[in-house]
Amino acid sequence: MRVGLDVMGGDNAPQATIDGAILINKELPKNDRLVLFGDRDLIAEELKQRDENPDEFDIVHAPKVIGMGEQPTRAFVQKPDSSIAKGFEYLKKGDIEAFSSAGNSGAMMVGSIYSVNNIQGVIRPCTTAIIPKEKEGITILLDVGTNPDAKPDVMYQFALLGSLYGKHVFNIKDPKVGLLNIGEEEKKGNLLAQSTYQLMKDSPDFKFYGNVESRDLFNDKVDIIVTDGFTGNVVLKQIEAMYRILLKRGLTDEFIDRMNYENFGGTPILGINSTVLVGHGISNDKAIKNMVLLSKEIAEAHLSQKITEALNTYVENKKQGNNN
Amino acid sequence: MRVGLDVMGGDNAPQATIDGAILINKELPKNDRLVLFGDRDLIAEELKQRDENPDEFDIVHAPKVIGMGEQPTRAFVQKPDSSIAKGFEYLKKGDIEAFSSAGNSGAMMVGSIYSVNNIQGVIRPCTTAIIPKEKEGITILLDVGTNPDAKPDVMYQFALLGSLYGKHVFNIKDPKVGLLNIGEEEKKGNLLAQSTYQLMKDSPDFKFYGNVESRDLFNDKVDIIVTDGFTGNVVLKQIEAMYRILLKRGLTDEFIDRMNYENFGGTPILGINSTVLVGHGISNDKAIKNMVLLSKEIAEAHLSQKITEALNTYVENKKQGNNN
Repeated sequence: MRVGLDVMGGDNAPQATIDGAILINKELPKNDRLVLFGDRDLIAEELKQRDENPDEFDIVHAPKVIGMGEQPTRAFVQKPDSSIAKGFEYLKKGDIEAFSSAGNSGAMMVGSIYSVNNIQGVIRPCTTAIIPKEKEGITILLDVGTNPDAKPDVMYQFALLGSLYGKHVFNIKDPKVGLLNIGEEEKKGNLLAQSTYQLMKDSPDFKFYGNVESRDLFNDKVDIIVTDGFTGNVVLKQIEAMYRILLKRGLTDEFIDRMNYENFGGTPILGINSTVLVGHGISNDKAIKNMVLLSKEIAEAHLSQKITEALNTYVENKKQGNNN
Repeated sequence: MRVGLDVMGGDNAPQATIDGAILINKELPKNDRLVLFGDRDLIAEELKQRDENPDEFDIVHAPKVIGMGEQPTRAFVQKPDSSIAKGFEYLKKGDIEAFSSAGNSGAMMVGSIYSVNNIQGVIRPCTTAIIPKEKEGITILLDVGTNPDAKPDVMYQFALLGSLYGKHVFNIKDPKVGLLNIGEEEKKGNLLAQSTYQLMKDSPDFKFYGNVESRDLFNDKVDIIVTDGFTGNVVLKQIEAMYRILLKRGLTDEFIDRMNYENFGGTPILGINSTVLVGHGISNDKAIKNMVLLSKEIAEAHLSQKITEALNTYVENKKQGNNN
């Protein structure tokens, strides 16, 4: 398997990405190859400074960079030689099986939708966060920012996408889906949550638990928590803020340590015909490493194929009127 | 000043409310009186068990209780002898100047809107949470659940109400208002946040800082954070969940201690013609005490009069087309 990394992406690139690439190479099995997308000379120089052998990496020359502040669509189209555009070119050709970047996440989304394409039937791709359960294991929260104005049918699909991600990548048996709300009762919440509940109730496509509240984020009521991208992003950034405060104040333990975003490093863009991961702009080498290793696991689990199959069933169910 | 407490309200009533009443009486100045609403015999018995002199309290006999699960409007109308309905009766007559309950918050809202009434010009009353800043001081978050589907003009008023609460009750000079969003830039967020931003920009009614994110909840960028009741409730319950986890795990310090909801005990219902506070169902004696003492401070600050005056200016500004 060949997995790609955008060396130029992220606030700390290329130092953090090169350091991350070296860490990745130490953990990748012999048959796998890491493919670096970026300026060839820069990469060679950075590897040389670290006494690393450039032959250990495949390097695809991409002299341009899409900056963090650039308008995504325009930049993606106007810079075919950028590390992000090159990555998608290789992904589309099948020369790599996964592509990760801590750079301009908007441009990564543009590449995902226009170059790799949505899986047929998926209304809107989405992104996820991994939240540690206090006891053990994880909860998958989605969406976390890609769809700030999600509609009920889109939220319904998040539940399906999240369930498949949990099942095939994190080996969660029969994942339970909760709808994030401000009360447990069916009629609680805003209109979006109320309508989404009605769609999810009796779903044949996933195991619906019912409403959960933000106080349930860290317990084991459910495995997948579905919300709109606005609320999900607020929840995620609040966890990150609290983690950083606790770290700074020395108030950590085994559970708090598991809140560190570096442990997973990035989120797949769920619902597209390939494996694409986006990382935090502030990613360090450890985060970069874990993002790329996660991309390999997701590709190996054939997640996008699994989603494609499930979407076929979902469309069948809809046709037969079994559901919304 | 006479301040009222619903003795029958809350998961731990009447034990927690009676214990709280005793704590309140120790801290209330001589000229102030605590008025207890509830079953006279029950109150007398509870006080006797604690060797307290019933003459120290004013007791208003209210033999009925509105349960936590009762439909608020129906219960309020059908139980004029309940502690909540009696409290509002006294509040309306002017026999008490503030009324607090940890009971059915829906019934407290019904009483506020139908018995005490909205301040003229206020579209929707709202509720608040006090969040500790890491350095020192507090941030006021609103709404936290009363308006899950708030509209931009309602959110605009939250900013005004929150500013006045911060200024007159917490002595925050010239409070800065932030709009909770998922990015700092003007165009970020869902449609609600984007539209609200446009209304708040250049507001003559409060000091608008711009967008803030949930990572800014605990820092000193702003004093007032405005959001819809859905998002605000999610944020609040997440703070509470994290606080409980940290407490359980022994990961506390001076800052974490300040997250304890007991420190303020309750939230005023902002935007009505009197001082009404609602507390957490799980309130203990300390929370009850602090809620009632806060109600006294709010009444003494003449907050609802201050809001009435500001609303007049706001309506004037609107008429003159200075704003939205």
